[in-house]
Amino acid sequence: MTNAQSHPDPIEAHRRLGGKIAVQAKAELTAEALAALYTPGVGQASSYLAEHPEAARELTIKRNSLAVISDGSAVLGLGNIGPYGALPVMEGKAMLFKQLADIDAWPLVLDTQDTEGIIAAVKAVAPVFGAINLEDIAAPACYEIEERLQEALDIPVMHDDQHATAIIALAGLINAFKVVGKDLRAARVVIVGAGAAGSALLRLLLDYGLSDVVLTDSRGIVEPSRTNLDPYKQQWARLGNPRHLTGDAGVALRGADAVVAVSVPGAVTAAQVKTMAKDPVVFALANPTPEIMPEDAKAAGAAVIATGRSDFPNQINNVLVFPGIFRGMLDSGVREVTPAIKLRAAQALAGLVPHPTAGRIVPSALDREVALAVAAAVQEVTGAKA
Amino acid sequence: MTNAQSHPDPIEAHRRLGGKIAVQAKAELTAEALAALYTPGVGQASSYLAEHPEAARELTIKRNSLAVISDGSAVLGLGNIGPYGALPVMEGKAMLFKQLADIDAWPLVLDTQDTEGIIAAVKAVAPVFGAINLEDIAAPACYEIEERLQEALDIPVMHDDQHATAIIALAGLINAFKVVGKDLRAARVVIVGAGAAGSALLRLLLDYGLSDVVLTDSRGIVEPSRTNLDPYKQQWARLGNPRHLTGDAGVALRGADAVVAVSVPGAVTAAQVKTMAKDPVVFALANPTPEIMPEDAKAAGAAVIATGRSDFPNQINNVLVFPGIFRGMLDSGVREVTPAIKLRAAQALAGLVPHPTAGRIVPSALDREVALAVAAAVQEVTGAKA
Repeated sequence: MTNAQSHPDPIEAHRRLGGKIAVQAKAELTAEALAALYTPGVGQASSYLAEHPEAARELTIKRNSLAVISDGSAVLGLGNIGPYGALPVMEGKAMLFKQLADIDAWPLVLDTQDTEGIIAAVKAVAPVFGAINLEDIAAPACYEIEERLQEALDIPVMHDDQHATAIIALAGLINAFKVVGKDLRAARVVIVGAGAAGSALLRLLLDYGLSDVVLTDSRGIVEPSRTNLDPYKQQWARLGNPRHLTGDAGVALRGADAVVAVSVPGAVTAAQVKTMAKDPVVFALANPTPEIMPEDAKAAGAAVIATGRSDFPNQINNVLVFPGIFRGMLDSGVREVTPAIKLRAAQALAGLVPHPTAGRIVPSALDREVALAVAAAVQEVTGAKA
Repeated sequence: MTNAQSHPDPIEAHRRLGGKIAVQAKAELTAEALAALYTPGVGQASSYLAEHPEAARELTIKRNSLAVISDGSAVLGLGNIGPYGALPVMEGKAMLFKQLADIDAWPLVLDTQDTEGIIAAVKAVAPVFGAINLEDIAAPACYEIEERLQEALDIPVMHDDQHATAIIALAGLINAFKVVGKDLRAARVVIVGAGAAGSALLRLLLDYGLSDVVLTDSRGIVEPSRTNLDPYKQQWARLGNPRHLTGDAGVALRGADAVVAVSVPGAVTAAQVKTMAKDPVVFALANPTPEIMPEDAKAAGAAVIATGRSDFPNQINNVLVFPGIFRGMLDSGVREVTPAIKLRAAQALAGLVPHPTAGRIVPSALDREVALAVAAAVQEVTGAKA
């Protein structure tokens, strides 16, 4: 086997495939099917749906369809690379939605980065979809876009970069704290990085029952005495941080039981890890280069380490979340993503590793049981299938 | 076999299927595929596309994807029944695009009927699509929407109700005139119904080389002395009609060689057919009830009769057009629908019935060779595949 085959060039792999998903017709092309499903029979279905639009969840693809939507403004670690740059990622997510959760997901990459334009476009195309997965939209626009769309639409709208990352990080923390034998809810946790993922994790940890959660950005602890906070950070500054810490991230990390970094390489140092409490938990989730490399965190005393990478133990990847949580929401017909749904998904994910160890706190991204278990858990909290 | 089985209830058929299309993953879920197509490999494809957006036609689903878009304002003969009413029709078209032309079509039904809102939404979602099929949008908004979208986008935009109907009607006329042994280009043709299909057919017949084409609406011949014409009809009033006819449709039909009715039941009478030239051609395309029933047209002397229905001979259905014409446009990478493309598609369709008879002037809607032949013809006029 040549090197090229064992490590195929991704661009060539994309070219050979020419798109990661296809459309499939669900009926055979017969005169009878055409008469029932197209002309003239479709007219009866159309008339019925005009009177009973809610029946679209029974008679049409809306029962199992989802849009993966990005404006290309914050793609992976690549930044604002526009809709065409975003497209391979969104196609990849659509492929994974099908493979892992049998959801019919279609990617939409938008030729606008204007908040009003994005909201208007998503609202316009929403009728055919049973759920909306927003993806790789830059902060702070992503917060307003998600909030206003969820308010306007009667289908679940979830910005993956915020919530899926928060959910799998919480799942990882639950199991990491079992490994170190501490009570997560009583722990001191620091979140390094006050972007989409960090702020969502802050709120999710508080919803889970923690109180001592401190958020930091590149200028230090996000707290009310800061004068350089945007309106969103001003809100987060009022959350967590019960000891009213001020100063740089080092202040927050001193004595902390865990740090979850969703920032940039170098944002956590070995010296800082050494100041943390006994058996510290270190999640360094920046991709491809973590905020601190696992070997450095270990040498500094970290007891449990996770990254976003598949070539280190404990990969914290949102592919563990999005297929199952949307499967559960589609199946239960829930119209909104609630904190209860997110917490239940995190708990289900943690439960998939019943005996966690320092080397295994989350399931494998390729494990097909994960989405089923998460979906089942979401259905428990949202009620049985209609 | 019960009656219900031989004539299944269309609503039940829709419910059993729960959507006429599904999404299919094109790669197996393996660690290697995930690395090349998702994380981390997808980053390379994304970076490349950010620099070379035109390569989306090679590396992504854009190479073979199409949106079927409606605002639900003019669905079948049902009128303005909104997006949910439109959805089963658009799904049906997506299914047929796959079955007949292997195109990955996704239906989008819009929660807006505002011209500016529709244009903005379609422009916003366009990057992922290789072509746009507008469908069941009411006149006159459909004209402006199609024109402005085709101008703004670098992919083909075609409003099916206008052009596909015009193309298959021209194909039918070409063969009908072989049956009656007349020269179509020298013929007098009347179009009854000055809506989307009628106006597109007027222009297509003139492009084909006819000069004596007269358009009528419910108030009579569309000609410049009329004072009750909207701006679009004012344009059409300046086309065709070289004998400067005025008055009602009966004036136009007297001595005409053919009538194509795209109007409402009763819009053409047996008495009018009797005033037409020898061996008149009568296309009565309203669905489900034609403008004149075939038996009445025949009794009045019609030599060749076509309708929109599958239970009469000569079904003029745009399913004969849209799969093949879009297949050809996607394969040749053409960025705009031109008159030459439409004419070539019509000629290819006519050519599929080399020896037309009064009972067979167009191919069968279920014939899988049709789309292939139309696509090949379109590629001839637009240039070879890149």
